[in-house]
Amino acid sequence: MTDPLLFTPGPLTTSASVKAAMQHDLGSRSPEFIELVTRIRRELLEIAGVSQESGYEAVLMQGSGTFAIEAVLSSVVPPEGRLLVLANGAYGERILHIAERLKIATTIQRWPENESPDAETVRRLLAEEPSPTHVAIVHVETTTGILNPIDEIEKIVRGEGCKFIVDAMSSFGGVPIDLAAMQADYLVSSANKCLEGVPGFSYVLARREALASTHGHARSVSLDLLAQWHGLERDGQFRFTPPTHALLAFAQALKELREEGGVAGRARRYRANRDVLLPGMRRLGFREYLAPERQSDIITSFRYPEDPAFDFAEFYRLLAARGMVIYPGKVSNADCFRIGTIGRISPDQVHALVAEVGNVFDRMGAKMLP
Amino acid sequence: MTDPLLFTPGPLTTSASVKAAMQHDLGSRSPEFIELVTRIRRELLEIAGVSQESGYEAVLMQGSGTFAIEAVLSSVVPPEGRLLVLANGAYGERILHIAERLKIATTIQRWPENESPDAETVRRLLAEEPSPTHVAIVHVETTTGILNPIDEIEKIVRGEGCKFIVDAMSSFGGVPIDLAAMQADYLVSSANKCLEGVPGFSYVLARREALASTHGHARSVSLDLLAQWHGLERDGQFRFTPPTHALLAFAQALKELREEGGVAGRARRYRANRDVLLPGMRRLGFREYLAPERQSDIITSFRYPEDPAFDFAEFYRLLAARGMVIYPGKVSNADCFRIGTIGRISPDQVHALVAEVGNVFDRMGAKMLP
Repeated sequence: MTDPLLFTPGPLTTSASVKAAMQHDLGSRSPEFIELVTRIRRELLEIAGVSQESGYEAVLMQGSGTFAIEAVLSSVVPPEGRLLVLANGAYGERILHIAERLKIATTIQRWPENESPDAETVRRLLAEEPSPTHVAIVHVETTTGILNPIDEIEKIVRGEGCKFIVDAMSSFGGVPIDLAAMQADYLVSSANKCLEGVPGFSYVLARREALASTHGHARSVSLDLLAQWHGLERDGQFRFTPPTHALLAFAQALKELREEGGVAGRARRYRANRDVLLPGMRRLGFREYLAPERQSDIITSFRYPEDPAFDFAEFYRLLAARGMVIYPGKVSNADCFRIGTIGRISPDQVHALVAEVGNVFDRMGAKMLP
Repeated sequence: MTDPLLFTPGPLTTSASVKAAMQHDLGSRSPEFIELVTRIRRELLEIAGVSQESGYEAVLMQGSGTFAIEAVLSSVVPPEGRLLVLANGAYGERILHIAERLKIATTIQRWPENESPDAETVRRLLAEEPSPTHVAIVHVETTTGILNPIDEIEKIVRGEGCKFIVDAMSSFGGVPIDLAAMQADYLVSSANKCLEGVPGFSYVLARREALASTHGHARSVSLDLLAQWHGLERDGQFRFTPPTHALLAFAQALKELREEGGVAGRARRYRANRDVLLPGMRRLGFREYLAPERQSDIITSFRYPEDPAFDFAEFYRLLAARGMVIYPGKVSNADCFRIGTIGRISPDQVHALVAEVGNVFDRMGAKMLP
C-alpha cells in the first residue's frame, strides 16, 4: 500500500522516519518520556526565537489546533474581558464562534477574504469604547492561504496594552516568526502542520507574564492552559494521559526540521513547492483567488474553471485515484479548491501533481479546460 | 531498543501490529479514512452489545478520557440541571472538579476508597430535594482498582428518570458491559485502555434519545458532544483534525480484540494475569488494599511493606531499570502502589514481573521484605 500524497492543509504527508518513531510504547511518567516532553517544549520556543529565560513558555495540549485555540480563549480572557477578532476567513469566524460559546464579550471586524486586516482600522477599533482587552487574528488564513501582517498589528495592539492572540496553525515552522520581535502573548499551532508531525496534540507559546496572570479565569478543566503549564512545570508531565506516540513522532519531526536548516530551510522548500505549483497551474489555465502579494507559500486557492460543468467531486476523485489528494475550497464568495504545499512534499512531487491535474483534465474532456 | 512492559493504568503496552498500523498518512477527508471511522464507531457499539438500530451512538472525541468526560458533562447537563456524583476515588472527584468548573449544580456523595456506592444510599439521595437530573459514577475506580456495581445502580437511577453517566475508562473492553441491559445514557472510555489502542482519542457511547435532546446545552465548541455526533453522522468526519494515526492503530486493535474472542476472551487473559499477580505478590509478603470480592482484574493496589524505610521511588526505579514499569498509588488514606494487568501483557510476563519484584527486594535488602 503506497500512501497518497497529501496536498492539503493537514493532516499532511510525514516522513517515514517520523512515522517509524511511533513504534514504541512509553510510560507517560517515565524519565525518558518526561525528558522528551521537556525537550519538545524547549525546541518549540527556540523555533520562535525565544526561551524560558526570555519570558516565554511552551504549553502542550491534547487535541487538534481548535482545542488549543479554545484553551487560550477559555483560559486567559477574564470574565470582564472583551475580545476583538480580526477576521478574513473561516478560522477567524471560528474564533468568534468559540468566544460566543464561552460567553466572552466579543467584537468581530471582518475583511473580505482576499484582503488582510489593516493597521488603520485596527487602530480605530482599539480606540473605540468598550475597548478590547484581547485581540485575536489568524496568521495564515487556511480558508484562502492569505498571509496576514501580524508584525504590524502586534505593534498597534501592544501599544494599546491589549493582549495579542495569534492563530499560527498553518504558518508556524513554515513561515519565520520571531516572538522576540513580534511579542504575541499567545501563539497557537498544531503538531501536524509545518512542523510535520502527526496529528494528536497542539501547543501554545505564551508570554509567561501574561499567562501567569490568568489565575481563576479558566472555564474548563481539560482545556485549562494555566493548569496544564503548571503541571508541565511541576513534574514534566501532562495532567491527563498524553498521546505518547504522537510526541515521539514530533521529536523526530523536530530533528528533521533542524536537519533541513530550521524554519528558514523549510520555508525555502515550501517556497520552491509553490514556485512549481503556481506557474504549472497557470499554464493549465487556472487562476489563483488571491493577489500574488497576499499569497503565502502554505496553501493556494484556485478558482474553478469557468465552464459551469466543472465537477469538483469528480476532479478530486480522479486525482485521488492517482494518489494525489487536494482539498475543497472554503472561500464564501467564489468557487475554489485548495492545494497545500506543506508537509513532506518536494518540488518534484508538486511537478507530478501538476502533470496529473493536466491528465485529469484531458480525461474529463478538453471542454473542461479553463 | 526494547520497550519496557507497562504494568500501569495507561498508556499501556500495545502489540507490534497495532503500532505498525500507524505507518500511513491518511487524508482526514479520504473515503478510506471515513470508512475507518464509521467501522470503529459501529464496532464500539457492538462491543457494548448495542447498535444504532437499538438506539445507541458512538461519538469519537480528540484527547484523553478526561476530555470525553468533560465533553459529556459540558454538553448534556442543561443549565437548570443537577448532577449527583457517586464517588469512591480520585476519578469520581475529578468528575466533581469538572462539574464545578463548568458551574453545574453538583452534589457529591463519597464512600471510602475501599467500599462501593450502595443501592440504599443512592435510592435515598435520589429521593432528596433538589433531585438530580444526572447521576455519574466510575465503573472501575483506577485509584484502587475497585469494581463498582453499575448494573444495580443503573436500575435505581433509571427508575427515578435520571440520566446515567458512566466513566468506564479503565473497564470498557476488559470487563463485559451490556448496554442493552445496563442502559447508561452516556458511557465514556478511551482508546488506550482495555481496547489496547494508542492514546490520542476517547469516545462516548450515548443513548441516542438522550443525546438528541441536549440541543443548546454545550458550553464548549471543541468538546461539543452533540455537534461532534452530528458532524460524524453528516459526513463521517471529525469536525476538527482527527488523530488519523491513532485511529489506524485503533482499527487494528479492534481486529485483535475480535481475534482474542472479544471482551470475554480479553477478560479471561486479564483475569489470568491477575491470577498470577495476586498469589505471587502475596508469596512475597505483599497485601492488597482492597477486599478480594471488590477487586477488578484491571489494576491492583498493594500496600507498602510495613518497614518505614521502604522507598517507593527506589523500588520503582529498580523495576524500571529491569524493563518493568509500575505505578504510584493514589489512595488517600494508605500508602500503596499499583500494578496494572491490562494491555498487551501475558500471564508469563506477569510471572516475570513478580520474579523481578522479588529480585528488587533482594537488592534493596532483606530488611525491606514486608
